[in-house]
Formats: sequence, C-alpha cells, structure tokens
Amino acid sequence: MTVELISVGTELLLGNIVNTNAAYLAEKCAALGLSCYFQTVVGDNEERLTLVLESAMERSDIVILSGGLGPTEDDLTKEVAAKVCGRALRVDENSMERIAEYFAGRDMEPTENNWKQAKVPEGAIVLDNDNGTAPGIILEDERASLILLPGPPGELAPMFEEKVVPYLEKRTPGVIASQTVKICGLGESKAETMVKDLIDSQTNPTIATYAKTGEVHIRVTAQAEGPKEARKLIKPVVKELKSRFGNHIYSTEEETTLEKAVVDLLLANHLTLACAESCTGGMLAARLINVPGVSEAFKAGFVTYSNKAKRKTLGVKKGTLQKHGAVSRETAEEMTKGTAFVTKADVTVSVTGIAGPDGGTPEKPVGLVYIGCNVKGDVTVKKFQFQGNRAKIRESAVSAALSLMRSCMLEYFSQVTFGKK
Amino acid sequence: MTVELISVGTELLLGNIVNTNAAYLAEKCAALGLSCYFQTVVGDNEERLTLVLESAMERSDIVILSGGLGPTEDDLTKEVAAKVCGRALRVDENSMERIAEYFAGRDMEPTENNWKQAKVPEGAIVLDNDNGTAPGIILEDERASLILLPGPPGELAPMFEEKVVPYLEKRTPGVIASQTVKICGLGESKAETMVKDLIDSQTNPTIATYAKTGEVHIRVTAQAEGPKEARKLIKPVVKELKSRFGNHIYSTEEETTLEKAVVDLLLANHLTLACAESCTGGMLAARLINVPGVSEAFKAGFVTYSNKAKRKTLGVKKGTLQKHGAVSRETAEEMTKGTAFVTKADVTVSVTGIAGPDGGTPEKPVGLVYIGCNVKGDVTVKKFQFQGNRAKIRESAVSAALSLMRSCMLEYFSQVTFGKK
Repeated sequence: MTVELISVGTELLLGNIVNTNAAYLAEKCAALGLSCYFQTVVGDNEERLTLVLESAMERSDIVILSGGLGPTEDDLTKEVAAKVCGRALRVDENSMERIAEYFAGRDMEPTENNWKQAKVPEGAIVLDNDNGTAPGIILEDERASLILLPGPPGELAPMFEEKVVPYLEKRTPGVIASQTVKICGLGESKAETMVKDLIDSQTNPTIATYAKTGEVHIRVTAQAEGPKEARKLIKPVVKELKSRFGNHIYSTEEETTLEKAVVDLLLANHLTLACAESCTGGMLAARLINVPGVSEAFKAGFVTYSNKAKRKTLGVKKGTLQKHGAVSRETAEEMTKGTAFVTKADVTVSVTGIAGPDGGTPEKPVGLVYIGCNVKGDVTVKKFQFQGNRAKIRESAVSAALSLMRSCMLEYFSQVTFGKK
Repeated sequence: MTVELISVGTELLLGNIVNTNAAYLAEKCAALGLSCYFQTVVGDNEERLTLVLESAMERSDIVILSGGLGPTEDDLTKEVAAKVCGRALRVDENSMERIAEYFAGRDMEPTENNWKQAKVPEGAIVLDNDNGTAPGIILEDERASLILLPGPPGELAPMFEEKVVPYLEKRTPGVIASQTVKICGLGESKAETMVKDLIDSQTNPTIATYAKTGEVHIRVTAQAEGPKEARKLIKPVVKELKSRFGNHIYSTEEETTLEKAVVDLLLANHLTLACAESCTGGMLAARLINVPGVSEAFKAGFVTYSNKAKRKTLGVKKGTLQKHGAVSRETAEEMTKGTAFVTKADVTVSVTGIAGPDGGTPEKPVGLVYIGCNVKGDVTVKKFQFQGNRAKIRESAVSAALSLMRSCMLEYFSQVTFGKK
C-alpha cells in the first residue's frame, strides 16, 4: 500500500520553517510498512493545491495532507479536499462543542472564523484535536483515502499517534511490526559500522538506523501474516543487537525516552535526584520533569548560570572559579558535590560549559562542556567537546548528562552487586 | 519568474533525515525574488524522477534538483535530467582532474564509479564542487532551466551561494523583501480578525499570519524592483500594524524571539532576573538562557517541583501549601516573592501548575497554571487554563510567563514615567 505526503503552507515555500512534519510522517509511515514515493509542498492556493491533490490521488492509496486547517482566511486545505471529493461542508456538532470548550477553558471568546474549523466534509471521519481547535479529517474517496492533519507539530504528532495509526493499521495488509533499540553514549557512525553487516544482509526484518541528538535508534521492522509471526522475526535480531551494544541500549520500548529510562532507574532503586545547570540553563531539569511521576525522585534543580550563583547556591569555592574557571573539571565536581550537600539527593548531576556563540578561547573553545555526576558519593566528571550552534550544543550536553547519569548509576549498582559497596 | 525544488533521496522518503536543503533553497530563492509554488521529494527511481521532473518543467521556469549526484549505481539525477533534455553524457576533463586532485589530496584512490561523477550532459554549464567530488550542473532547456546540486548541505550551500546565486541574479527581475511583526498575548484568530481587512485588500505587499505557541507572527512580503522600493512598500503596512497591535508587538526583527525581547528589556533597563519553576521545571530558564548575553541579567533559577523544595528553597509557607495547595494564586505569589528575597533580583517570575496527565481535579483541572511576576515589589499573579498534553501545557506556560514578564515590566516603566513611582 502506498502513501503520499502533501504539506500545505506558504511558510514552507518561503523557507521560513523546515518541514519536520514530513520527516515525522514519513518515518511513521515507513514503520507501518507503507511505501512513500512522493512528498509535495504546496502553498495555500486553491488551484495549485487541487492540482497536487488530484495527481496524488491518482498514484497513491493514501494521501496525508498537513497544514491549512487553521481558522484564517488563507487556510483552505479542508475546502479543497471536500471539493475534489465532491463533498459539501457540514457543521460537526462535536467539534463545535470542543471549540467552545477550548475557548471557555481559556476564558477567551471564540471569533467568527473559529467556527470555520468546526465544518467538516460530509461522510468524513472526524479526529478530535486534543491540543488545538482544528479537528483532523479522514475522507475516503474511491481514488484514495485522504487524511487531513493540523500543521503545528504539537497537534499533528499526538493526533497521528493516537488516531491515525490505529486507522492505518486496520488497512495495511498482513501486519507490520517494528521494535526500536535505543542506544546512548555511542556516535552514529560507530553504531552504524557495528550493524552494517546486519543492515546489508537483512530483508525481512529490515534494519534502519536513525541518528538523534546524543542517541542512535535502530528500528527493526518485520512484515508478516500476524503479529505473532512478525514478533518471531524481530526477536532474534533484537537479541543480536543486545549482544552487540550491551549496556549502551537504554530501552527497546517505543515510548521510552532517555529521560524516562533515567527516571525509571531512579524510581526502581528508590534514589532521589537533583541537578545544577550552567550552560544548559534548565534544559536538563525540564527534560527530566517531562517524565510523569518524576516528582517521586526529583528533589530540586538549580540554574546557576553566573559564578555568583554557583558560589551562593552550591558553595563552589571562589578560588576554584578563579584558578580553573567556571568551565572546568574542578567546578563541575564542586557543583555536583554542592548540589548533593544542599539537597541531600542520592544522585546529583552538574553541567558547565561554553554554549557560544561567544566566550570561546583557544584553550576552552565553544562546545567545551564538563558534566559531573555524583551517585551516593561516587563522583565522575567527564569532558565533552560538542559541535554546532548554541542550541545544538546545549541539547547535546543534556543528552550526554542523561547518558552519564545512567552509566554512573549502573556502575554504582554493579559495584554494590559485586560487594564493593 | 518561478522556481521549483526537487529533492532526490530515499532517505528523505523514509524520514531518516529532515529536508533542510529545501528550506535553505526556498529561503534563498524567495530573497532573489523567485516565486516558488512547488517543492517535491522523490526517490532515486528513474520512472518517478522523470515524471516529477517533466511536470516541474511544464509549470516552472527554473527547476533546482538536489541529491542523487553521488558515485553509486542508484544515483541517477544527472542521467535522468540528461535523458529528459535529450542530451548525451560526456566526460568533462576539468571535473576529471578535480576528482583526481580531490583524492590525491586525501591520499585516497578514486574507485571506478567516482569517474561517473565527471560525466556531464553536453552543452551543460559545470559548477565546480569545492567541497566534494560531484560537480553541479546547469542545463538550459527550452521548457525550463535545470540546476543540479549535490545533496550534502556542506556541498550544496557553498555551491549555491558562490555559483548559482550569480547565475540567478542575472535572470531575475526584482527582489522580494519581507518583515515579520511578532505579537504576544493575543490568540491567532483574534489577531487575524484585527487585520482581516488588510489581508483582503493587500496584494503587494501580501500579509500572512502564522500561529506559534503563545504568539502570532504577521509577515509582510513585498515584491519590487530593488530592496529600497520593497522596503518603501512594507513600511506603511508595518506602521499600520503597530498602531493596531500597540504593546502586543514585541518585535519586528526576524531574529528576535520573545525571550530575546524580554532579555533586551531587562538589559536596557539594567534589571536582573531570577525565576522559580514548578510544572515548567526549568523550561522557562532554558528559554531565557538561550539568549546570548543573558548572563548580564540572569541571577539564578530554581526548579522547585516538590512542596519541600518550594519551602526550603523559596520559603513558601507550609500553611499556604496546606490551605491553598501548591497550585494556587497564594503559592505563586510566595514563590515569586521568595525568589526575590533569596536572589535580590529586580524581576522575578514564578510558575506553578498542573501539567498532567495526572494530578487534575474538578476544582483544579490539568492545564491550570498560576504565574507570578514581581517587578521591584510590584507583584502580579495571573491564572491560566491551558489545553493539550503535558508538553503543550508546559510550552504554553513558558510563553505566557514571558509575555507576563514583558507586560509587567512595561506597566512598571509607564508608572515610573507617569511619576507614580
């Protein structure tokens, strides 16, 4: 079965934003075993959108359109799709109510054009939008099935996961099952060379690697008659990957993020956590706190961006900052120890580095980051040299901190097991 | 003059990589005054690439293809382009030499298929590749001019800047210039209704609204003979928007984010900042610290996720937490006051709320967030009810906190100006 993606939005044609939705949808569709041969970007223009949509419907079984469902004048994806399929637009009572609730919940008044979003083509399947006002729409035509999704990634992704995937799974012949082996603490090319032979030799299941910031995901996808058969194909490959990557694998669960793996490890061992951040400025705490249930473990976080804050809040010595600088092994160590002293947390982590664009020197270039981790008194400090812009360096530092926390905890546990503690 | 982009690569269709080349090329072409109405992604497949290329040549003056110029069997962009234009492939001596040099410089032996990269369609303009082995190619056909570029961004971008831009400038009639008016504290549809008349009446410049989390961006785009003429068209429209949106406009600069506007306001008035976060767990500090130069103003940030941390770190009263709860106007107020007391910062902001998915009650539903802001003793606490999943609620809270900080500071300054302080 073939799927085709149409991204609607002038901001994409002008290059104002990068088309992350297409990459997201393409990856998800591939995981579902759908073949995607074309992706198109077109503006909010009736004539051109009609042209693109009609040729897509001629050559593909499923067409996923994203964007152009907003309340504004130039949003016309829904109108064009209805016209191409010869359907009239009708008010959907449920969507009407949801929009009313959405605004009531915000103590805001919906304007006239918000109600435009409650109109859907007759005979369409309506997908409730839990993160915005524009409902998604599935429109089944004899030429192809159209799936209309809102443009904002924060609305598109959850709607696709929760409502579109189940719909597509029903339609795909046989089943496609996939399992993702998630790896941290290894570079992409290193990981790729470690599985290249598998990738080249395998056809079913297929093996594909995806590079994420500070992580590599290896997806094993099998096509089979039933879920049981598919799992049987996947199992030995995952077993092989486990033997190759060992402790670098933090999860084989789709929904488990690196931060969730770290938090699970803390909770399972009744350990509490605190962190102190300089260059990442709260990003590490924010990622940890994105894990529901973290409150059991998370004691406190400190954003000690200035030297004064490092001294006042964490008790980093003035002499240390003067002698070694704020970005140094010594400061990272005192930060994580200070955090443990102040919070009494079992596990503390500290991040200090130069995110740039300014502040770099030949000795301490932009991207230099020290990360300290303290597990019940066992302190580890690691030095990193990250590449990229300010945002990329900070993201990399957060992922590295999570990886380090995990490996330090595992190391600690193994010592306990071997009676060294 | 119209341009169309075709990105060739199976890795794009599988979602392995995000199509940053398309965004890069689209933005550059827009700046050159070229109208881009279509972008297509297609795999390394002769039949489908031919189909896409031919329809592009029918409807656009210039077609830019990226990717598929590699040495391997499945790279066939050049072969397809030559075939579609009825040109034979000839060896280009200069490219031959450059490839030899490229490998010699790396003490490497070119493989047989590397010489494939030295073949170009007869009558083509060859663009030397200073960062790789695949030369770029310009192929002028009566239907359209084809521009073939290598896929790696590190090769594509410099080749475009240095060799393609001069070629296109000779061919383009005018320029497109645009300015973005950035608005906070107003919903998209509200903002839209406030400019609907302008959007409907304007053709050059055009006006388009873009919704961001907690923000609305209005882009004014003009086409003119030169940059000066374009700016002259844009200026009155921006002036009109300023008169309509007043203080809701936080910037008209492309590169200015809401957090940068807030930090600029702090720095310009020599004010220091500190924040205390519960449900946003560091996201607010992280966004503020993403602004280079913030260190001048940012004193400290606290992630007080637990009640204990709120009491220990910020001195929130036990009685307040017991009587009103952690998510309450009173707690938000004590958090921001406590942060001011601990840090002595001029401006402090506090965020406490229920991000979900659990923890909601009929009285205090998921999405309820209180944000407190203290400007030199003037304390404001606002109640918000956000919708969406955990991540969306936290993002919305961060944007709302930034908007509130901004409006509280402006309010404070106006009182100072009017001698009330």
